[in-house]
Amino acid sequence: MQRSTTPAEQTDPQVGLAVSTVIFTLRADDGFGATDPAPGIWLPLVRRIREPYDGLWALPGGPLGAAESLADAASSTLETTTSLRPRYLEQLYAFGDLDRSPAERVVSIVYWALVGSDEAKRTRLGQNVRWFPADALPPLAFDHRDIVEYALWRLRNKLEYSHIAHAFLGETFTLSELREVHEAVLQKQLDPANFRRQVESSGLVLQTDELRTGGRHRPARLYRWTQPVTRPETPSPGRSTSRRPTTSTPTTRQQSEEPA
Amino acid sequence: MQRSTTPAEQTDPQVGLAVSTVIFTLRADDGFGATDPAPGIWLPLVRRIREPYDGLWALPGGPLGAAESLADAASSTLETTTSLRPRYLEQLYAFGDLDRSPAERVVSIVYWALVGSDEAKRTRLGQNVRWFPADALPPLAFDHRDIVEYALWRLRNKLEYSHIAHAFLGETFTLSELREVHEAVLQKQLDPANFRRQVESSGLVLQTDELRTGGRHRPARLYRWTQPVTRPETPSPGRSTSRRPTTSTPTTRQQSEEPA
Repeated sequence: MQRSTTPAEQTDPQVGLAVSTVIFTLRADDGFGATDPAPGIWLPLVRRIREPYDGLWALPGGPLGAAESLADAASSTLETTTSLRPRYLEQLYAFGDLDRSPAERVVSIVYWALVGSDEAKRTRLGQNVRWFPADALPPLAFDHRDIVEYALWRLRNKLEYSHIAHAFLGETFTLSELREVHEAVLQKQLDPANFRRQVESSGLVLQTDELRTGGRHRPARLYRWTQPVTRPETPSPGRSTSRRPTTSTPTTRQQSEEPA
Repeated sequence: MQRSTTPAEQTDPQVGLAVSTVIFTLRADDGFGATDPAPGIWLPLVRRIREPYDGLWALPGGPLGAAESLADAASSTLETTTSLRPRYLEQLYAFGDLDRSPAERVVSIVYWALVGSDEAKRTRLGQNVRWFPADALPPLAFDHRDIVEYALWRLRNKLEYSHIAHAFLGETFTLSELREVHEAVLQKQLDPANFRRQVESSGLVLQTDELRTGGRHRPARLYRWTQPVTRPETPSPGRSTSRRPTTSTPTTRQQSEEPA
């Protein structure tokens, strides 16, 4: 095949295309009634009921329908498996290794989603769907373990230079709540005084006049983000003449979109 | 279809899969003999010789072969069209809009590559391939204009917090050369004294003992990166037990890899 004279946009019917989603939330419970353990990152998995990998757990996903955009396929998977609409949905990576599926060649375009812990608690799971802690996953089908590891790595990196913790928190939050998110993602304890200094000097958050009261703790100062929370890095919708895609539309429900 | 019980890894034969590549380099010449204009970002395009979009320019690319990994497909396109092996090759994004191709549904997984200007000068182009300045592109086939805009936006963002300029420069470089890269990518003039202060306080570069001599200018101090240049953000190869993919292997020829 002459790539230089037949560029792009042909198809090879031997390669299949799937869309899968890694869905993270922050959960304090361990599902077995333990009281108030440190919150950790959890994700929902789906038990396979046919070959290959019958009986193993896998990321929610499915073949890309001919009439579905990539983001629509990811959203639809989310809704079917967990009844959730994520605060944050972004394309993660396309995994296309030759032998990632034993029977046929399949490329999986993977999205990652973050949902608030309040939402995750209200979740109705589909049949054969369960939440697992990210640090205690069962054996996974395909290369889904690698995909989860990569998503966790992206989450850790993104936490450091963005508002991504927003997806786990409400509009306002205490510094303890923000520290808990960082501790869960980074999987290590952070010194409260150092964390406070770093966060306050980062310019990312502002004190509000409000206090969080109630609960076992004394009232704590509430903070908010200094700037509107930005959308995930996604291509600009439409054929804009501007060289700079819109990347900072204020929005609370963040959804990545394919270009129109 | 029950997504919750038939997860992942099926295929819909109606959706095709292509891999395309956006290749950026820094060029000072304008191709018409003008002497010493400011360097700008250029990219190679391929003229289509069949429908759809017969005669229009497009990104180099082609269908994903059943026996090719995604990165191999991107590399092979690069080599066929430009004889180039890029210093930097990274997956950019999967574009899957429903009507991006008029005839059939095609999802394009797009890579982006950076090549040094010295290499770009030595390039032998394939038939129907030409370099174009990024700020004066001809009409492009499909949604390739949007893809180029998105790649430029990613390049601008990445420049600010990484060593990505390395891909345009040698192991050592003068501050003027580094400023030229930033000016070309950001498309604006930067004040030399401010730029020097910012770069020197960033901790990203170190003075060497060497000077660049020759040419029309007086000898200039050479700089180098303080740390080994890191690989692009890609999933970890293999099923590592570590939660953190290898991301800082020192390497001069940077190539993204699918997990093995």
